Amino acid sequence: MITTEIKEALIHLVGTENYDDSKVSKLVYSYDATPQYQSMPAAVVAPRNKEEVAEIVKLCNTHYIPIIPRGSGTNLCAGTCPTEGGIVLLFKHFNSILEIDEENLTVTVEPGVITLDMIKAVEAKGLFYPPDPSSMKISTIGGNINENSGGLRGLKYGVTRDYVLALEVVLPSGEIIHTGGKLAKDVAGYDLTRLFVGAEGTLGIVTQATLKLVPMPAFKMTMLALYHDLESAANSVSKIIANKIIPTTLEFLDQATLKVVEEYAQIGLPTDVSAVLLIEQDGPMEVVQEDMKKLASICQQEQAVSVNVAESEEEADSLRTARRSALSAMARLKPTTILEDATVPRSEIAKMVVSINEIADKYEVNICTFGHAGDGNLHPTCLTDARDEEEIKRVEKAFEDIFIRAVELGGTITGEHGVGMMKAPYLHLKLGDAGINAMQAIKQSLDPNNIMNPAKIFAKDTRKRVVVTK
Amino acid sequence: MITTEIKEALIHLVGTENYDDSKVSKLVYSYDATPQYQSMPAAVVAPRNKEEVAEIVKLCNTHYIPIIPRGSGTNLCAGTCPTEGGIVLLFKHFNSILEIDEENLTVTVEPGVITLDMIKAVEAKGLFYPPDPSSMKISTIGGNINENSGGLRGLKYGVTRDYVLALEVVLPSGEIIHTGGKLAKDVAGYDLTRLFVGAEGTLGIVTQATLKLVPMPAFKMTMLALYHDLESAANSVSKIIANKIIPTTLEFLDQATLKVVEEYAQIGLPTDVSAVLLIEQDGPMEVVQEDMKKLASICQQEQAVSVNVAESEEEADSLRTARRSALSAMARLKPTTILEDATVPRSEIAKMVVSINEIADKYEVNICTFGHAGDGNLHPTCLTDARDEEEIKRVEKAFEDIFIRAVELGGTITGEHGVGMMKAPYLHLKLGDAGINAMQAIKQSLDPNNIMNPAKIFAKDTRKRVVVTK
Repeated sequence: MITTEIKEALIHLVGTENYDDSKVSKLVYSYDATPQYQSMPAAVVAPRNKEEVAEIVKLCNTHYIPIIPRGSGTNLCAGTCPTEGGIVLLFKHFNSILEIDEENLTVTVEPGVITLDMIKAVEAKGLFYPPDPSSMKISTIGGNINENSGGLRGLKYGVTRDYVLALEVVLPSGEIIHTGGKLAKDVAGYDLTRLFVGAEGTLGIVTQATLKLVPMPAFKMTMLALYHDLESAANSVSKIIANKIIPTTLEFLDQATLKVVEEYAQIGLPTDVSAVLLIEQDGPMEVVQEDMKKLASICQQEQAVSVNVAESEEEADSLRTARRSALSAMARLKPTTILEDATVPRSEIAKMVVSINEIADKYEVNICTFGHAGDGNLHPTCLTDARDEEEIKRVEKAFEDIFIRAVELGGTITGEHGVGMMKAPYLHLKLGDAGINAMQAIKQSLDPNNIMNPAKIFAKDTRKRVVVTK
Repeated sequence: MITTEIKEALIHLVGTENYDDSKVSKLVYSYDATPQYQSMPAAVVAPRNKEEVAEIVKLCNTHYIPIIPRGSGTNLCAGTCPTEGGIVLLFKHFNSILEIDEENLTVTVEPGVITLDMIKAVEAKGLFYPPDPSSMKISTIGGNINENSGGLRGLKYGVTRDYVLALEVVLPSGEIIHTGGKLAKDVAGYDLTRLFVGAEGTLGIVTQATLKLVPMPAFKMTMLALYHDLESAANSVSKIIANKIIPTTLEFLDQATLKVVEEYAQIGLPTDVSAVLLIEQDGPMEVVQEDMKKLASICQQEQAVSVNVAESEEEADSLRTARRSALSAMARLKPTTILEDATVPRSEIAKMVVSINEIADKYEVNICTFGHAGDGNLHPTCLTDARDEEEIKRVEKAFEDIFIRAVELGGTITGEHGVGMMKAPYLHLKLGDAGINAMQAIKQSLDPNNIMNPAKIFAKDTRKRVVVTK
């Protein structure tokens, strides 16, 4: 509860213009990109520097006030929903790219920088920041770090975690620590850097980050392969990897997704095929050309109906549209789009997609599946209506079955979206009690008053998707 | 203290043949590869499976008996010295490569497998495990994981941490948890996998690991560049990276090292030059050949006295010998060789090497420097005599100054050797009190009785190198 005294203290810290408890602002920050989760914060606060962050944290720690650090709120796990009230912390004053170091191949940024702005800034210098979450046009680097965001280039290049070299973090105690450095190697104690990456703001507040860059690949090619059956597409994925080719991108769309995308984007995709693979490779020109030949040949051997290598960047862009517009295309069809994130070893993709379809049939719900086939990271996406309580119950059941099946196949309940509030009830499927207990012990050790983004990752009970409105 | 009762319980668990408290065995396991650290364990125990490990841990937890998990003991930070007694845990029964999964590009191993044996096994299938610590012929994978070992291919490929996908860990409570999976992406809660990697056995006992593999590069080339001054060599390193070339290996040897190596290996190295770079590139043949041309040209522009590209694998091997034999060459010169591990951003290498030489002069100690220039990971190595107390005091002072200077330059006190007991007194230089407190809180949360490899990472006091014999 924010008393008048605490409110005054916060205003004294950050200035009147950076404290907002108007009804409209509280409403705006009561939800993020995740459907069905909403909860009102007590106030929205925008500190101007790390010292102010530290003072806010100390104040909140003394008074047991939850703090929800938030970038653009594009996460899909209700990771920035102010579940237990408290203050939403905005990073609009943390929007500088502080340094691009071409000798050490690093970029140092504040957490409020928009991902794509940073990517463009480093690309202007011939450097490359590979993680490219679908939300990168509006997501912030701070949000990417908190969620350990993935993207379409993960197969070859890894995820956000693989590019975070150093962090400045305000701990729940209000102390400021610096982890890592511009260092390829650093084993001075526990790997706190990677513990904070993906911790969803539950262990501390990132106020600065140094990220690793790599040289920009010289050349890139894109192709689309169409299949009459799912297994052939999945076999192509396995065979590509078994042939020791690691493409930059290896994306999958099922027939249901394909139909929705074509209806929306009108790019001439055949809707009578069962599956599509979007494949991209980058690197030196001769290597890429050679790889593309091999890739096309593998897809043909695996019964692809057609294989189309883009001849120009415009054509490549139109092929990419098929994948990139999947979510937008779906979102306009039904009032509620639930984009999920079950991940399996890539050898199990075919089994997982078949299971998803069976589960959708069983519960009579409408699920399209697309995703990062090379990573085994699938996005079964349900088109539904949050107001239809009966249907939502079936949707919940279906997703629970999907998560159980993913874990059975050696997978996980979330590959890149995070746990947040949404997946918390399912975390035990992946980790068991002992794993969750270990994580909670760590949480408790750093944040004994549980002020940092409470009710995320760890479920209070087994309650599933429920609209919470205060 | 191991009472007769506890001894009997341990023997009951693992069998007589796997419990050893003979004087000779205790002596053998009283030290590791780190000079000047020795302490007697109470017993040496070799469990046969994870269940036995779990039972041992429970027993030790009840009786506050330290457990020191140990592979081949090749670490250089006194990380496996039984500082506070207790039992040394051997992994001789955990020596199986359980699976090489060519579809998911993973290898699953028990921790006692020798690193090079595993590397050879995966290479036989055209796959590649890049981390190559110098000790790989005798080190174990478990040891590599506990220390987050680096190696000569770190610049391009990263370190052990970047290849650990999944772990089976016995927690200090005796519970067995499974982290990660055969998954390119997994954000189900905190990244425990990477927290355990490099934790030096202080948080739990690794009993199984799944490691990521990559396709074996098709081709490799090796060259040696000689320089009359240090700055030219360092400038070459910076210019190579600034030209967006990331070699597999970019190693540095100073004149002092060069002389010692040539005297030992007799490979025809000129000893009148000030610095040598050993450069290797791998990948598709045409790319490697193109890169090598550019690399040679950069080195020549930066005033290399000579640039020698190996024409055959035999010649490449002989060039590599210059680097690989550095430690052996030094070790025969004086009774004690202290191989250190200061790391800086690669842009600061020249400054760091100059500082090391100044510090060696100041304290009148004999320090040769070589290491992974591309990573900024230098190994200043002191040839000394542990019996000469007065000299050892100067050596300690010199290394303290080196660590202080490394941190001043944005570096760290250890890039790949770990903290162990040896670096613990210097950890505050890198992390400050708040950083150390955060790490200790995590340690305390998982191992409240401090049974897991106690007195490592965290210093009890500011005591430096002291021979401890019980």
